[in-house]
Parts: sequence; structure tokens; C-alpha cells
Amino acid sequence: LPMAVAVELVHTYSLVHDDLPCMDDDDTRRGRPTVHRAFDEATAVLAGDALLTLAFEVLVAGEADHAARLGAVRELANAAGAAGLVGGQVDDLAFDPSTADRTLIESIHARKSAALITAALVGGGWLGSADGEARDALRRCGESLGVAFQIADDLLDADEDEGCSLLRVDHAPGARARSEALLARALDATLVFGEAAEPLRALARYAVRRSE
Amino acid sequence: LPMAVAVELVHTYSLVHDDLPCMDDDDTRRGRPTVHRAFDEATAVLAGDALLTLAFEVLVAGEADHAARLGAVRELANAAGAAGLVGGQVDDLAFDPSTADRTLIESIHARKSAALITAALVGGGWLGSADGEARDALRRCGESLGVAFQIADDLLDADEDEGCSLLRVDHAPGARARSEALLARALDATLVFGEAAEPLRALARYAVRRSE
Repeated sequence: LPMAVAVELVHTYSLVHDDLPCMDDDDTRRGRPTVHRAFDEATAVLAGDALLTLAFEVLVAGEADHAARLGAVRELANAAGAAGLVGGQVDDLAFDPSTADRTLIESIHARKSAALITAALVGGGWLGSADGEARDALRRCGESLGVAFQIADDLLDADEDEGCSLLRVDHAPGARARSEALLARALDATLVFGEAAEPLRALARYAVRRSE
Repeated sequence: LPMAVAVELVHTYSLVHDDLPCMDDDDTRRGRPTVHRAFDEATAVLAGDALLTLAFEVLVAGEADHAARLGAVRELANAAGAAGLVGGQVDDLAFDPSTADRTLIESIHARKSAALITAALVGGGWLGSADGEARDALRRCGESLGVAFQIADDLLDADEDEGCSLLRVDHAPGARARSEALLARALDATLVFGEAAEPLRALARYAVRRSE
């Protein structure tokens, strides 16, 4: 549970900062005013900073043993930092559809979406006392599932003609086939857990095949 | 050393975000263009986010034992978050000299300056295997030293008539006496370490009595 809370905090931080006028400049999010519209830009910057920091506070305050909590903190920091969310957002802001290719698009998806989903799974593994082999399986699952999820998101938003999307370089059937292939890879990675991972597999299928 | 690097990263993150147009709107910092001037606002927000996250990556990657690294992460997260830097900056942005009193001003100093200095000392204590009593002494030292340092800073910037400063409610001699009293309290807290803390005491005296 602490990992789920921490990941949600980091996700919310990234949305608050990504919505800023100097980034995506969004006025609404899920039908409600964005933080910088409801309050002001300084509040949005600081609220994001506070949420990001709170995620680490939540993880260190947990009850798992020290090595497990430290592992979870490491996963979250790697996912949030320059190699993850921040780096993905930098490349997303500089995204130029005229020169983009599959490799760049999936690399942005990997850092903006898959890194945090992977951190949720592997960090959850750390806190749940999963061993190294189990954490590796969770990592493979998260990396594939995260990109598949983002392609599914792109397919649902196909009418929005902006930003980084696999539909920039691929038609919908091709993109759907790619997301299914990645989903299959993610599901494969969980077979080692047997029946116990069925809820995870159901969630993965839903995330990639949902229709809204 | 990892603690010093982490604290410097958090300090730099806070300067980059505090300089943003929506906050203090500074064009230069130490004689050079601020990040949002040299690049753009999005880069400044993201660079700050990356520096903050990198601080946690540095701490988890250290070589100290798990409990010590976890303690250091906790100190840094508490200092950076809503109870520390972020909360201090919120109150600083809302600072109204006409209604400010000593309590509010020192509370802002405690969160914007003393929290990070305290984290450096206590986190360093964690990584250096200091016991609970020693960490308590370092915390008392940091809390007093941090506010004394900020008052000294206010005295040096006395000609700048903006922002939160004890000189809003006190004359220079009174503020100097307050910073000396806090310095004495900080030095007292280190007596338990004997000769070994002489470099720390020299640094504390310099930080509060420097003339530039």
C-alpha cells in the first residue's frame, strides 16, 4: 500500500507540473480546473514539489524492513528522475512529429508511463519481500505493460492531434497490434507467479484493452 | 559526503524554482543568468524536479548500512517537503511586512534555511553512525545555527528592502544580538562532541559572523 500511495503522489506531481503554462498549458484536467488555474502558478510549482517529496516521506515511514524500504525508494527515485519522468517530459516537450520515429516515441512512453508503472510493481515487490528473481519478473512486466498502456491511451485519444503518440508513425491497426504484443510479453513475465498474479493480469488486460 | 551532495542538490533545486517568474522572478543568481533566463521556464521547472529527485538517488546509492541511509532519506524528505522548504516558501511568498511578527519571520527562517542545515547535520550523523543522542545534539545545533545564519544573511542584505527579514521588526543591533544568542545555543549543543566538533564550531561562527 505505501508504494501505491507513493506512486500516485508522484503521478499527481507530474500532472500538476506538466499542466503548467510553460509546459502543456492545460486549463482543465478530468473536467476540473488545473492547480495553476484554480490557484496560481507558484502554488502549482510548490504543490508539485511537495507531492514529489511526500512520496519519499511515505516510503521511508513504512513498516517494511530497512533494505526493502530503501529498495522501494530507489525504484521511485529512478522512475521520477532524469532517467524517467523528467527526461521523458523534456523529450516530449521537444517532440517534433516530422522527425519522430518509433524508437523515440517508445522511449518517451517508456520514461513517461512505463517507468512509474514499473516502479509501482518492483517497489511493491520490495515492500512485499519479493526476491531478486521475482522483482526482475515484475520489472519485465512493468516495462512492457507501461508502453502497451500508453499506446492504448494514444488509440483512445486518436482524435487529439497533438503530442507524442505512436499514431504519428503508425496506423491504428499497427499500433493496436504493437500494444497487444507488449501486453502478451507483460502477461508472460507474470507466469512465474502462477494463480497469485491473476488479479495483476486482469488489471493489465483491462489497462490495455479498455474502451474509455 | 553523500549527505553534503544531496543537501547541495536540494538547495540548488530550491534556488532554481524560487527564481522562477511565478515566484521571486530573478534574472540573475550569483552574477549569472538564472536557469529560466538561460534556457526557459519549462527547463527550470524540470531541472529543479530532476535535482530534487537526484538528491534521493544519491542517498540510496551510498555505502552506509540500510538503517542509516533510510534515516538520511527521512531527514532530507522532511526538510524539503511541506513542513520544510516548500511550506517556508509558501509563507515567504505570502509574506506581508505590515502584519509580520518575530514568530512568523523565524518560522519562515526555520523552514527555508534551518531545516536544510539541520538535515545536513543529522543526515550526516546518520551516515556517520552517530547514535540517537548525538543526532539529537546535531539537530539542536542545526535548528539554532540555521536561523542565526539567516539573520546574519538578512543583516548583510540590509539595504535590500524586500522579502522576509528580521529587520522588518527589529533594528540591526537587536537582530545581531538574536543571531549571537542562537549561535551560542548552536555551539553549546556541540560541546558533547568535544574537540572533534571544533571544525563544525569554526564553520558555525564563520556562517553567522561573516562580513560578506
